[in-house]
Amino acid sequence: MKEISKLMTYRDSIKVVDATIRDGGLVNDFCFDDSFVRGLYLANIKAGVDYMEFGYKGDKEMFDPEKFGKWKFCDEADLRTIVGDNDTDLKLAVMADVGRCRYKQDIIPRDESVIDLIRVATYLNQIPTAVDMIEDAKRKGYEVSCNIMAISAAQEADVRTALDILGQTPVDVIYIVDSFGALYPEQMQRIAALYVEYAEKYGKKIGIHAHNNQQLAFANTIEAVGDGVDWLDATYAALGRGAGNCAMELLLGFLKNPKYNVFPVMKFIEQHVNKLRDEGMVWGYDLQYLMTGLLNQHPRTAIAFTKDGRRDYAEFYKEIVAMD
Amino acid sequence: MKEISKLMTYRDSIKVVDATIRDGGLVNDFCFDDSFVRGLYLANIKAGVDYMEFGYKGDKEMFDPEKFGKWKFCDEADLRTIVGDNDTDLKLAVMADVGRCRYKQDIIPRDESVIDLIRVATYLNQIPTAVDMIEDAKRKGYEVSCNIMAISAAQEADVRTALDILGQTPVDVIYIVDSFGALYPEQMQRIAALYVEYAEKYGKKIGIHAHNNQQLAFANTIEAVGDGVDWLDATYAALGRGAGNCAMELLLGFLKNPKYNVFPVMKFIEQHVNKLRDEGMVWGYDLQYLMTGLLNQHPRTAIAFTKDGRRDYAEFYKEIVAMD
Repeated sequence: MKEISKLMTYRDSIKVVDATIRDGGLVNDFCFDDSFVRGLYLANIKAGVDYMEFGYKGDKEMFDPEKFGKWKFCDEADLRTIVGDNDTDLKLAVMADVGRCRYKQDIIPRDESVIDLIRVATYLNQIPTAVDMIEDAKRKGYEVSCNIMAISAAQEADVRTALDILGQTPVDVIYIVDSFGALYPEQMQRIAALYVEYAEKYGKKIGIHAHNNQQLAFANTIEAVGDGVDWLDATYAALGRGAGNCAMELLLGFLKNPKYNVFPVMKFIEQHVNKLRDEGMVWGYDLQYLMTGLLNQHPRTAIAFTKDGRRDYAEFYKEIVAMD
Repeated sequence: MKEISKLMTYRDSIKVVDATIRDGGLVNDFCFDDSFVRGLYLANIKAGVDYMEFGYKGDKEMFDPEKFGKWKFCDEADLRTIVGDNDTDLKLAVMADVGRCRYKQDIIPRDESVIDLIRVATYLNQIPTAVDMIEDAKRKGYEVSCNIMAISAAQEADVRTALDILGQTPVDVIYIVDSFGALYPEQMQRIAALYVEYAEKYGKKIGIHAHNNQQLAFANTIEAVGDGVDWLDATYAALGRGAGNCAMELLLGFLKNPKYNVFPVMKFIEQHVNKLRDEGMVWGYDLQYLMTGLLNQHPRTAIAFTKDGRRDYAEFYKEIVAMD
């Protein structure tokens, strides 16, 4: 049983990471206008958020810059348009996917960049490349985290092996990622215990990135907080792929460190996020995401269902059960 | 730490109560058409739901039958229009609020009624009347439950006294009710332990009725399941007052008893609930409900904000913080 007293105190080691542009960019191909991104940057500073993730370091040979907004690539010049030299307490992050990023050339040395943190994202079968990316980013001077994706569909032995390999790299933070929104808090508790075991052995921090397919993104995140997980991803109004993420407004309402302030988050949602909804951007819990979460499947079929404007849930359920 | 094995097995003592018409009726003044209510009744039977709550036994001198739909009153003849003699495994329930119900005259003997369960709802300061209502309903032959409302704003000593009084009545089930959607799972765990203590002493069952102000209605419900709470309220698509309830589709997806079947729930939502949204009925998580939940306030101000079509969250937050 977690100590209730911890609800009234706080842990200094907790870091909040805003992933709105990066995970939200998966909904609108990263086509946010500058006033949105600049407003979010300023809101994060006021809200006391620790890190803001801008987007991906995407490979321009794989992804056509004509078809994506600039946060798919996060060029240094584009970042500086928003943040200048970022002379603030808010640190900046970008994500680099294994196999979708020319990290050796596109990630420049940290002393030439406003970026502080490189977030490597990997599947279990890509760990050797992830290790190379971690070492590359560390050599260049960055803080580095690593997301192991889709673990709800993985063998525990494989996850253990990955944690043991990553533990021996210079990575700073290893993330629990519930890519399919399939995990219940009881399972999150056990997974957190497993990750914390390796974190303690190798001196790493653990993070959590949750999805809201079963309306458990916030619940799983605060479960993880109680289990010793320190790095917490959230997005404004839960903006993110499919069912979305842990909502920043819920998370900052829960955290008790006085440096956090939920009011600028509410204000930004009122001024900027409502507009995205009005313009037709669709994300958040709906039955198609519950279904893929329940079946522990990638949400791609549910995202297609949403994009097609379908609402025939029963037919969709039959389709994905047949695929299972 | 809860036993993970319990996620793969099930407890026979669990009962699922569909509160869609009753809690959803608070959104549309109980103006559901008969095809909706009949469809829901049939869906509940197919889904293996244990109890279906139709609405209130409202006092017709207090509430004008011209201004409310018939499920505000649940006259026997109206119930029978939907269920006939209800020759099924699905049991029927109605709610009776302390102070808003002429229970002595309006609740007829069970052998003349299709109703199986009377759900008494009370605030802490109304417990003596609740006791009288429980005894009245028991004398008439019903199963009886009792909701103690708004406990997140109550003293533990008062809750203990109420549990001790109710324990000595013939009530069958005592409900934990998170009226304000203010509780976190850690708190739910402690409250469940308190209720279970009295339940074991007096041979009662414990139920949970959660609200989704902080997207925790489902999380708190499954937390309670793990803590020994057996009676679980849910509504289709979380339909209910303000931020809504624990979603039936999430709950039946989680429960493993083979008698439950989530598919008819999805089908009903597709065929009937989407229409309500299209017609302009509004419920579910939004920032105004998060705010009243965070501040542990009754959601009435947030409901008014919704009704007025307001979206100026920041201004609303200032208003309710000032009232705090």
